Amino acid sequence: MYEDRIRLAALRDRVMSADEAACLVDDGMVVGMSGFTRAGDAKDMPAALAKRAAQHPMKFTLITGASLGHDSDKTLTEAGVLAKRLPFQVDATLRGAINRGEVMFVDQHLSETVEFLRAGQFGKLDVAVIEAVAITEDGGIVPSSSVGNSASFAILADKVIVEINLAQPLGFEGMHDIWIPGRRPHREPLPIVGVSDRVGSTTVKIDPAKIAAIIITDTPDSASNALPPDAETQQIAGHLIEFFQHEVKRGRLSTTLPAIQSGIGTIANAVLSGFLDSPFEHLTMYSEVLQDSTFELIDAGKMDFASGSSITVSQRMQDQVFGNLERYRDKLVLRPQEVSNHPEVIRRLGLIALNTALEADIYGNVNSTHVGGTHMMNGIGGSGDFARNASMAIFATKSVAKGGKISSIVPMVAHVDHNEHDVDILVTEQGLADLRTLAPRERVKLVIDHCAHPSYRELLRDYYQDALRYGGHTPHALERAFEMHINLRDRGSMLAGQEA
Amino acid sequence: MYEDRIRLAALRDRVMSADEAACLVDDGMVVGMSGFTRAGDAKDMPAALAKRAAQHPMKFTLITGASLGHDSDKTLTEAGVLAKRLPFQVDATLRGAINRGEVMFVDQHLSETVEFLRAGQFGKLDVAVIEAVAITEDGGIVPSSSVGNSASFAILADKVIVEINLAQPLGFEGMHDIWIPGRRPHREPLPIVGVSDRVGSTTVKIDPAKIAAIIITDTPDSASNALPPDAETQQIAGHLIEFFQHEVKRGRLSTTLPAIQSGIGTIANAVLSGFLDSPFEHLTMYSEVLQDSTFELIDAGKMDFASGSSITVSQRMQDQVFGNLERYRDKLVLRPQEVSNHPEVIRRLGLIALNTALEADIYGNVNSTHVGGTHMMNGIGGSGDFARNASMAIFATKSVAKGGKISSIVPMVAHVDHNEHDVDILVTEQGLADLRTLAPRERVKLVIDHCAHPSYRELLRDYYQDALRYGGHTPHALERAFEMHINLRDRGSMLAGQEA
Repeated sequence: MYEDRIRLAALRDRVMSADEAACLVDDGMVVGMSGFTRAGDAKDMPAALAKRAAQHPMKFTLITGASLGHDSDKTLTEAGVLAKRLPFQVDATLRGAINRGEVMFVDQHLSETVEFLRAGQFGKLDVAVIEAVAITEDGGIVPSSSVGNSASFAILADKVIVEINLAQPLGFEGMHDIWIPGRRPHREPLPIVGVSDRVGSTTVKIDPAKIAAIIITDTPDSASNALPPDAETQQIAGHLIEFFQHEVKRGRLSTTLPAIQSGIGTIANAVLSGFLDSPFEHLTMYSEVLQDSTFELIDAGKMDFASGSSITVSQRMQDQVFGNLERYRDKLVLRPQEVSNHPEVIRRLGLIALNTALEADIYGNVNSTHVGGTHMMNGIGGSGDFARNASMAIFATKSVAKGGKISSIVPMVAHVDHNEHDVDILVTEQGLADLRTLAPRERVKLVIDHCAHPSYRELLRDYYQDALRYGGHTPHALERAFEMHINLRDRGSMLAGQEA
Repeated sequence: MYEDRIRLAALRDRVMSADEAACLVDDGMVVGMSGFTRAGDAKDMPAALAKRAAQHPMKFTLITGASLGHDSDKTLTEAGVLAKRLPFQVDATLRGAINRGEVMFVDQHLSETVEFLRAGQFGKLDVAVIEAVAITEDGGIVPSSSVGNSASFAILADKVIVEINLAQPLGFEGMHDIWIPGRRPHREPLPIVGVSDRVGSTTVKIDPAKIAAIIITDTPDSASNALPPDAETQQIAGHLIEFFQHEVKRGRLSTTLPAIQSGIGTIANAVLSGFLDSPFEHLTMYSEVLQDSTFELIDAGKMDFASGSSITVSQRMQDQVFGNLERYRDKLVLRPQEVSNHPEVIRRLGLIALNTALEADIYGNVNSTHVGGTHMMNGIGGSGDFARNASMAIFATKSVAKGGKISSIVPMVAHVDHNEHDVDILVTEQGLADLRTLAPRERVKLVIDHCAHPSYRELLRDYYQDALRYGGHTPHALERAFEMHINLRDRGSMLAGQEA
């Protein structure tokens, strides 16, 4: 049975139920689990672990690539098994537990997690749980729709549990490029010099003896929950396309553009879709997650190649792409997230990095993670890997949220994930501010006039005038810096008190 | 004349006075000038430019490697010629003008400036002014005690002015390793895999026809103004040495340690000196600036090799090192700052990055630049290049300043240069907090108990208790977050109101 999926015959007797495999995990352990932006996550083990915990109370540290699908983080949170969770999540239930201080969440640059693991920072990795489409004759693990941290998890873990997912097509085989850096101090350069370069192996090579359990499952990935483009995200895309055209005219960019990184979510997806009706062509991506827009651009002949760590698409696109992987075979590669997010490659290729901001301030500092400065939304993800090392870091957001009660442009962000040094371009549906080469005082007018919603501009200008009393390179009136945030928290709107 | 210094005979007729050369600079230009942490700066041109401006009013953009010596920034500020200045400075007069909004200062990661220039972000570079010890037979420029951005300035500028400095020994020749990345999109890996690797040329190669003027000067570098170690910086060093020993015991570090980067200044210099009486040996540095401590460690046989972009030492050490360059020839290399600070090499080597904080908050966010959140001190320098990409980012500061009126540990830093994602270790004379793998709420107790001064601990604990009312991954009471800063600003002490 499963001869095409478990080709190393000696491993076939390790097939067992998820409930049996779950007994390999115990209290106090460190568990690495596949899954990156809802793609290629282990489908059966999370529920099995929750079930086991009901009989056998335990808490463990759970490390993934990025977010999981199938409400797995909800299931695990409700089971009370998560002592520590990293490096990223998008689950409402888990988010609540994090913000109540019940689950310790380590919000980490996605390129760094496996470096921490290798350095022994979390102790030893006890168990890895990896979704795969197959195990090859030589015991190599063939990942599915994401690589994430799976390869290093399997290499570093004492025991490996493989979830063979029959719902993931065997066509994924050959699409991965598994490159693992050498041990320091003798580490060689990462040899990727173009987005399509293949520099590693197509499978994760480990000692098959470490494979302690194989689970057979047949559950597709959760579909992407990115919303389709709307009027405002289309305006954001429009401003960016216009800006890129302007840069081409000035001779600072070519019409193929540098390779693009695009964060996950509705806005980034919409911006990329905006390239469909643009004069840009032969586009390439060197990104983390490949969303619907990537495949739209490939199908339209606009994009030549896309490198990512996962494929997270809508249900419609899942049917189209996963059912026709052959069609994309020479246009896609999936890499470990430390390679997709590696500062070395990001700087070398001179990426255009496009990520989403929760809020930005008048000087161009960006908060990507903390609602109201206190409550975790999802995590910094790869945005810090990219923004620091890219040749152009773009942050996009709608200028207001909650029907205008929240301005995304504030006097001072209440949490800083990306500081002024790293934020080159800020764009909202109102317009775009090119902050490069500008001192903080030069940035203020651009950010307020181009990016802030009209209903907040006077409030922001008043703040800046008041702040100038104190002088400085970056003027602030500290006693008022969070006035808008406090109004929102206590009175339900950042405009509270302004209506009169 | 100067046959040994200007070996390409055809260039000897370009020798002129600094006043004559200054006429090559005009209003609205962009000027790149050598100089990195007071080393290898142009000695005569700044004063000549100020003199020219008195007759011929002009303003220009001045880009350097990092800080200049000889009060050059003061001279230029007082002459009113600086429209824009980047990427770093340490001058009190210039600082004042920046904080009054008179000079637009672009505070930039030191690895990025030449990338911006290459991308045309500042328009064309009109003039480069480069200190050199010699021009070779083939017109190659031999830099002096720093490389900084000099090589790329010379390559990119329309016209190059060379200051041949007779006070800089010819022994510098051969000590530089000039590597310039290829043009994207076909950039190759930076091939440095060990700190002592030489991968480029020993001179800056440009078309000699671009050399429009040669000035002969005879002025030594300004000596370092780092203070000698004191009781508190020695305590900081002690905590760090103890921590490193602990990491060795746990098998996470070896006694040679990864290569060390060390920021400029008194604290970083003192910490490095602390290695003299430690069990660590065969140390190496991959850093920006090499200070006294580097040479003390080399002389003591503790350090095998040091790679930097400049040598900035005390008067005593200048006499000893510059007079005996032969002795250090096989133990030193000076590189362009985009190589010394390159994310690619920093991540590959897994550097220990040691930088100074102005203040840190209870969650481990660090402010390196803005006094009171508003007033620029020096700039972020290379700290962001290193902290983001290193394997271990350490930030050091004394726990209090101004006789206890300022706490370096605050509820929320009033400006963020390095966020919690990038700050691994925080150390003061009080102790050390290892923040790796910890969620924000887990960090608070460590930072307060280990790093804060006893006179501020209760105040910080009270703040955190209050902040918990609002919950969140990173609890804050926004209305009180800057209370200590405001007390300092308005009442002269962060403890104001606490004495009662």
